[in-house]
Amino acid sequence: MDLNADLGEGYGSWPMGDDSALLSVVTSANVACGFHAGDPSIMRRVTGEAVERGVAIGAHVGYADKAGFGRRFVDIEPAALRDEVVYQIGALDAFARVAGDRVRYVKPHGALYNTIGHHEEQAAAVVGAVVDYDRTLPVLGLPGSAWLRLAADAGLTVVHEAFADRAYTPSGTLVSRREAGSVLHDADEIAGRCTAMATGQPIQDSAGGALKVEPASICVHGDTPGAVDIARRVRSALEGAGVTLSPFSR
Amino acid sequence: MDLNADLGEGYGSWPMGDDSALLSVVTSANVACGFHAGDPSIMRRVTGEAVERGVAIGAHVGYADKAGFGRRFVDIEPAALRDEVVYQIGALDAFARVAGDRVRYVKPHGALYNTIGHHEEQAAAVVGAVVDYDRTLPVLGLPGSAWLRLAADAGLTVVHEAFADRAYTPSGTLVSRREAGSVLHDADEIAGRCTAMATGQPIQDSAGGALKVEPASICVHGDTPGAVDIARRVRSALEGAGVTLSPFSR
Amino acid sequence: MDLNADLGEGYGSWPMGDDSALLSVVTSANVACGFHAGDPSIMRRVTGEAVERGVAIGAHVGYADKAGFGRRFVDIEPAALRDEVVYQIGALDAFARVAGDRVRYVKPHGALYNTIGHHEEQAAAVVGAVVDYDRTLPVLGLPGSAWLRLAADAGLTVVHEAFADRAYTPSGTLVSRREAGSVLHDADEIAGRCTAMATGQPIQDSAGGALKVEPASICVHGDTPGAVDIARRVRSALEGAGVTLSPFSR
Amino acid sequence: MDLNADLGEGYGSWPMGDDSALLSVVTSANVACGFHAGDPSIMRRVTGEAVERGVAIGAHVGYADKAGFGRRFVDIEPAALRDEVVYQIGALDAFARVAGDRVRYVKPHGALYNTIGHHEEQAAAVVGAVVDYDRTLPVLGLPGSAWLRLAADAGLTVVHEAFADRAYTPSGTLVSRREAGSVLHDADEIAGRCTAMATGQPIQDSAGGALKVEPASICVHGDTPGAVDIARRVRSALEGAGVTLSPFSR
Repeated sequence: MDLNADLGEGYGSWPMGDDSALLSVVTSANVACGFHAGDPSIMRRVTGEAVERGVAIGAHVGYADKAGFGRRFVDIEPAALRDEVVYQIGALDAFARVAGDRVRYVKPHGALYNTIGHHEEQAAAVVGAVVDYDRTLPVLGLPGSAWLRLAADAGLTVVHEAFADRAYTPSGTLVSRREAGSVLHDADEIAGRCTAMATGQPIQDSAGGALKVEPASICVHGDTPGAVDIARRVRSALEGAGVTLSPFSR
Repeated sequence: MDLNADLGEGYGSWPMGDDSALLSVVTSANVACGFHAGDPSIMRRVTGEAVERGVAIGAHVGYADKAGFGRRFVDIEPAALRDEVVYQIGALDAFARVAGDRVRYVKPHGALYNTIGHHEEQAAAVVGAVVDYDRTLPVLGLPGSAWLRLAADAGLTVVHEAFADRAYTPSGTLVSRREAGSVLHDADEIAGRCTAMATGQPIQDSAGGALKVEPASICVHGDTPGAVDIARRVRSALEGAGVTLSPFSR
Repeated sequence: MDLNADLGEGYGSWPMGDDSALLSVVTSANVACGFHAGDPSIMRRVTGEAVERGVAIGAHVGYADKAGFGRRFVDIEPAALRDEVVYQIGALDAFARVAGDRVRYVKPHGALYNTIGHHEEQAAAVVGAVVDYDRTLPVLGLPGSAWLRLAADAGLTVVHEAFADRAYTPSGTLVSRREAGSVLHDADEIAGRCTAMATGQPIQDSAGGALKVEPASICVHGDTPGAVDIARRVRSALEGAGVTLSPFSR
Repeated sequence: MDLNADLGEGYGSWPMGDDSALLSVVTSANVACGFHAGDPSIMRRVTGEAVERGVAIGAHVGYADKAGFGRRFVDIEPAALRDEVVYQIGALDAFARVAGDRVRYVKPHGALYNTIGHHEEQAAAVVGAVVDYDRTLPVLGLPGSAWLRLAADAGLTVVHEAFADRAYTPSGTLVSRREAGSVLHDADEIAGRCTAMATGQPIQDSAGGALKVEPASICVHGDTPGAVDIARRVRSALEGAGVTLSPFSR
């Protein structure tokens, strides 16, 4: 099983999260590329440390929107979006290569991630960017998203992810964040669900039924100290259950 | 002989210069990388057209300063500058590769170009970035600059350029722009000097003496309609004198 | 009658339009505030020249999106949008006051203008910003827009504008730009329609009927040389018809 | 005596310092204006809370350099700098007025503060901006700086500040940060020195002699939790010594 998390989300004098702590937990790092967060020096530091620890580097591409941290939908023309994504992957790949590895996958961030779940033109644009840059790069996303469907159509390798701390509906989609209970907070419960997902067991869905979620990667969060603790708990629960942790991209 | 010029210097809805016209004249294109000018869509368009025309793509790296067009010295820490230059080369290389080629050389822009003529720490930072990214990339600059001296010390291939429209002192340095007569405007005179430089003949220096300038590349300007005409005149004068035009990087 | 146009839309080394030419034609200048276009030096120059010529200064507020020139919808939180609009009005007002006048009205730009035609939350945010800053400032917009409706509800003075070069439906709304004939190009026709609108006469709507449009201001464009000529033609036609031109805000 | 500190230095999703805690300690708030730090929503929040607490609002103007947090010298043309400072003061003043007060003084930030200690052209530019905007605004700075000298020449009210945690040479200038002992860390010592400065007593200079520093405002720092504690200690020591704390600008 692979664990992925967002890293390198500081900017200049403003830190965010504890990149070093998370890099000791995850096997894949979604590294911000300087558009919604991150900057060249942070990218060098995070990619360098990722390579040292054997963590795979993914391009966490986003809208060019530092003021909104990439969490605002931007109705950018698809051709311009495609170019922006190529730019971001190329910039991050430079640091990954300086560090001795290369970008191993692509995962969109924030509002772009959400948008391309359903927005066909923007989804096609991001797919096009990956095809342009390197059609051997896997893409990470949510089962059922336009993003993964169009990526598969284009011949890209698609990788399903699940969220460690999110509730699922009986049909396997995420419960909306607007609903109560959509986000789980109990570390033991979260770790237990991750272990179930990693060992082919069902988890409990939002209606109380049994749901099989079979991700190739589980996304954990790390932007708060508590989140790092949960991520550590997930990792140790998986290891305790005999699950081998390694990057999906290797 | 190689002719180089700055291209891709528009930004969003703001054009600058006539990239297509210049690409029909020069053999090497210094392409802005989105820090002082340029954006991903411009980078894609210019690199695509450059490859179609057999023009070599160079990374025209600059300070992160669109408001000042990269013409203001910024006292950035050398380590951060090094990272910014790696980022820019990587981003441009993505588009060069999408277009079927790759970045062939590095030439700093504006205030960065001027600064690393003498600023040892920033010069070393830009050299370090090229070494980091790809130590086979040639670097283009002014003979006598700290930039080329440190690049040579680091084992990089250094390439001397001359300026088509600038007056030279008897010692072979540029006459300061603050002095009268530092910039030439007569197209015939400029073309004649370029032909001399390309065929091993001396030009007249600012004191009236004979000066041999033996560049591997001549920089022409293109940010005004008149400048494109001068560039065309230079090219046809060189061709008329039997000088073969081709990228220095091939 | 008032004529308004967008001005100060350059950025740094990138000019746009001929501000001086337009300032000799219009009576109200929608001045970009540095978010989608413009910068402090351009704002000083344009406000200074506007005051010299007796042209009223309006705050042309937009999304913070220079790369997209403010033409892309951004799903910004309404509270943040309200703050961004206050910021922009305040910054422009500084230059207007330095020049001896003050901001006289507010007109949103581009995608923000279009969005608040129907997006209630963002419209309320821009209204809120004007209320915050100075509730005596008139707001300029399209009859029927959420923007003007909410502004009126909040007690602001609303001013209706018409577009010199746009076709109108029988119900008085603009024909979508996606439809053929939505934008007029013939200077005589445009000038004739403007004269009709300014003198209480009907214009021909897109179905061939007679439509009375009774704006307090007519928007002309100026971002191309041809557009400036059309604007001049409109002005001279109005003057020829005995229409007095003066800022609506005085 | 007045206590001033830098506030509102977050940006978007990136916080910095504890603005609320500091606002309960200081009497004057140097509020970032969105160029080196801060954004419209932060500016609204900080100015609102400052007014509630009776803390005077100062414009903490800086270079347009979020990536470098305004700590890098930028060789901007003085006329452009002047315009950028007018812009910043106007934007902040909008929020100060929305909150029921107005900008009460101007204090440059970081590299701009340091530069205009000696750089005559940039110092004159910042002075010019204050003159442009409102020549009744006091300016805060270091005794002996070009900034305060030129401000006084221009008829502005100049206010001397001292730094709570910095060592002073026998001639009353700051010991360079590059030298050992230039920054004090002991809260009792810092509080004691502030009390001395506020009551007309000498402090010990770096050579062990007695130095009278007679500031109208003392600058405390707040960007770390420890710094807030020191600031609180300074305030309570001053109050314990019977020093009345109030904004210098009232």
